[in-house]
Amino acid sequence: MILEDNKSDKGITAKKNENFDEWYLQLVTKSDLFDYGPLKGTMAMKPDSYEIWEKIQDVFNSMIKESGHRNAYFPLLIPESLLKTEKEHFEGFTPEVFWVTHAGDNETSERLAIRPTSETIIYHFMSKWIRSWRDLPLLLNQWVNVLRAEIKMTKPFHRTSEFLWQEGHTAHATQEDAEKEVALTLGYYKKLAEEYLAVPVITGKKSEKEKFAGAVYTTTIEGMMPDGKALQMGTSHYLGQNFAKPFDVAFLNEKEEKAYAHTTSWGVSTRLIGGMLMVHGDDKGLVLPPKVAPTQVVIVPIFKTDNESIVMQRANEIKKALDSSGIRTRIDSRNTYSPGWKFNEWEMKGVPIRIELGNKEVQENKITYARRDSGEKATCTTDDAIKTIANALEEVQKALFENAKRLLESKTIKVSDYGEFKKKIEEKAGFVIAYWCEEDECEEKIKDETKATTRVIKEDTNASSQKCIYCGKEAKKIAYFARAY
Amino acid sequence: MILEDNKSDKGITAKKNENFDEWYLQLVTKSDLFDYGPLKGTMAMKPDSYEIWEKIQDVFNSMIKESGHRNAYFPLLIPESLLKTEKEHFEGFTPEVFWVTHAGDNETSERLAIRPTSETIIYHFMSKWIRSWRDLPLLLNQWVNVLRAEIKMTKPFHRTSEFLWQEGHTAHATQEDAEKEVALTLGYYKKLAEEYLAVPVITGKKSEKEKFAGAVYTTTIEGMMPDGKALQMGTSHYLGQNFAKPFDVAFLNEKEEKAYAHTTSWGVSTRLIGGMLMVHGDDKGLVLPPKVAPTQVVIVPIFKTDNESIVMQRANEIKKALDSSGIRTRIDSRNTYSPGWKFNEWEMKGVPIRIELGNKEVQENKITYARRDSGEKATCTTDDAIKTIANALEEVQKALFENAKRLLESKTIKVSDYGEFKKKIEEKAGFVIAYWCEEDECEEKIKDETKATTRVIKEDTNASSQKCIYCGKEAKKIAYFARAY
Repeated sequence: MILEDNKSDKGITAKKNENFDEWYLQLVTKSDLFDYGPLKGTMAMKPDSYEIWEKIQDVFNSMIKESGHRNAYFPLLIPESLLKTEKEHFEGFTPEVFWVTHAGDNETSERLAIRPTSETIIYHFMSKWIRSWRDLPLLLNQWVNVLRAEIKMTKPFHRTSEFLWQEGHTAHATQEDAEKEVALTLGYYKKLAEEYLAVPVITGKKSEKEKFAGAVYTTTIEGMMPDGKALQMGTSHYLGQNFAKPFDVAFLNEKEEKAYAHTTSWGVSTRLIGGMLMVHGDDKGLVLPPKVAPTQVVIVPIFKTDNESIVMQRANEIKKALDSSGIRTRIDSRNTYSPGWKFNEWEMKGVPIRIELGNKEVQENKITYARRDSGEKATCTTDDAIKTIANALEEVQKALFENAKRLLESKTIKVSDYGEFKKKIEEKAGFVIAYWCEEDECEEKIKDETKATTRVIKEDTNASSQKCIYCGKEAKKIAYFARAY
Repeated sequence: MILEDNKSDKGITAKKNENFDEWYLQLVTKSDLFDYGPLKGTMAMKPDSYEIWEKIQDVFNSMIKESGHRNAYFPLLIPESLLKTEKEHFEGFTPEVFWVTHAGDNETSERLAIRPTSETIIYHFMSKWIRSWRDLPLLLNQWVNVLRAEIKMTKPFHRTSEFLWQEGHTAHATQEDAEKEVALTLGYYKKLAEEYLAVPVITGKKSEKEKFAGAVYTTTIEGMMPDGKALQMGTSHYLGQNFAKPFDVAFLNEKEEKAYAHTTSWGVSTRLIGGMLMVHGDDKGLVLPPKVAPTQVVIVPIFKTDNESIVMQRANEIKKALDSSGIRTRIDSRNTYSPGWKFNEWEMKGVPIRIELGNKEVQENKITYARRDSGEKATCTTDDAIKTIANALEEVQKALFENAKRLLESKTIKVSDYGEFKKKIEEKAGFVIAYWCEEDECEEKIKDETKATTRVIKEDTNASSQKCIYCGKEAKKIAYFARAY
């Protein structure tokens, strides 16, 4: 029995440019990436999304290991007394902490927080591990699950009560070294987002109101989604000695004097996947950047009566050739589905290149291939297949980034009048850039009135000759405002 | 300031063959692998142990991916109602479950278990994901943290309240397919233990009393530690339809009839690291098998007045050559420590090969190298370095396995008299093999009287002509008894 007729059931019924939220929910479920767990806001990452996460891990691990960082593992459960050590931090996270109160039948001696982030537990260890300037810098990272009870609406990969992330935690002898680390890792995040996920980002500092609870300052990479909302895709924090002092992360310097370390922390999460999916997907399904796609090329043999063995032989030859040059290739040889059904399925799954192989191709020693992003079809000789497909994958990667860059540019505008500001935010215009006096009060009023927050703050040499978009007083900075996920 | 004098502080003060438990505790802490967390039984894996875990992950991932398994991620928190679905399973795990009762300030609507293992939550998803025979087999795995409140004495890597593991969960159309899967993955575990960790294991089934809560049967790999205790290093379970029925993991077969899947689960944990450390370590510190050692070769330059740049140049050349042939090499160029201090440190950390490089070596175009396992020193020409070191690494790997095999053999004996049985167990003789009637009662009495449990049960064609070691009735099986971790 060959199945061909259930396309309507499997396809996405919402349009990306008409009903974006519904489109996204169908996208991640129908493409087999995501499922909600029985507890509100928890998720299962199905193999295709987890494999994207594994690719992200590989890329990021090679970046951080190159510069001397090492992975480690720290406990999931943080005693409440430890979480309370830094006051601002505790107040920032406590509303969303899951609390363990029992082990088996016994009440625990104090409440145990499931890590919402690991600064406190890691500093507990750092204070024991660091003794001398010789132990610095200490450059650690871990890949773990973290939990934050989500009271707002959840969204697959973007906002779930449990998610996966990496969290880097480093200790340095000087402020200068620590600030270099913050910039280095933010640079890694930008590279990861742009060169691998094909999502351009803007970078800069967060405002005081938007920074990490306990940080001196927070830097961020922010992407722009097709619905005009900003997405914070990664943050890197300079924590100064705010944690080092209460946790006694101290060392003897070269003069044998006690000094406190300067620390940093930085993280990206499975939210990266969500941003990438939103930006590139279309009404047919996922469109995956080749560099992180689990399957880069799918070969669909077109079986007719009596040609199965010869077509499969050719398919295997081509797969072997592509595999050997590092192109992740699979053959869809299932004989219970028609070619058209398979085309739809692999389009839904966003495989960058599809190769069609039938009698004609075998006889003429060629392949027909189609790009997922543009739908373009072309042919080449079997001999040229490796080179042609490798080029096509590079072109897809590049085209996705260029498209996303055009999206970002078309959704970034500068305004100088608050009426226009409100109108643009209301129209979902994206990043609305404006001068700002840097006062919390203006930021809060803008948020109350428009739901837009400051996403990135930048220095601007002209600021002092400009007026704050809200209060009209002298501007201090230029700010990217947007509604955000 | 050059440090040379704190050897006594850093070295292990207990002897492996005199005070094994104390030796092991010093081993894992002084070699910088492990630290206890603030909550009893929780652990931090420091970078060197985590990197061993990463190597184990790489090896095992390539095995399971080759045979079509895929990694995924499932929620940490399991609602109590779901955990209760399979009665035996719930009763087996509930005494050691950590319970979440609050999210922020709000009580949760039911208690949430932190996963002690993930069968129940994964079957919740499988029942949704599997609809047709086309969806089978479903071959999933996840690399995650699990928690089991430890009331017994904890031991680094062997028994901690939180640990890392992989758990494979598969669903098949037939019993035959599922049982093949159980055997396949147990074979992977044996290969991982023997060929990579250099720890020989015996394999077989667990008794009814010792099997996994909810399984039809459990298979195991068991290693032998130098103190005569057995270590369960990995298990693979055939679960039959015990979970599939209550969780409705069902499918329409080719005749369009509803059928229940046959499921399996299998796991190895960070305990593998503990077993490996115990077996190979010595009084100087760790002895790491080259295949999983984070650093395989350390080059220690011997600086004299004015030779630093020339020695470092040669060291860099050798490192580059070794790196390029895939040998993980580092140079210890710190000038705040003496060569002797560094030798001790790298011996403590178990690096398989140390290269010494001084004036003499540079002038004569040679290297001096020492094997960590045997202490043997030799020289070779610089030109031969890659080949010689690669061979030496292979020899170390092989020698560690052979030594461990001798240990296992010397600690495996067969007895036919219960008096001798008790004596051998008391003497910590290791695996004591005996015929057994397969009755729970004998097994329990032996455990009560000797603290030995059945580790592995094997079929034996002569069993029916033999007598049970305890009750003297007709034997059914041959059993490996031992005290165990």
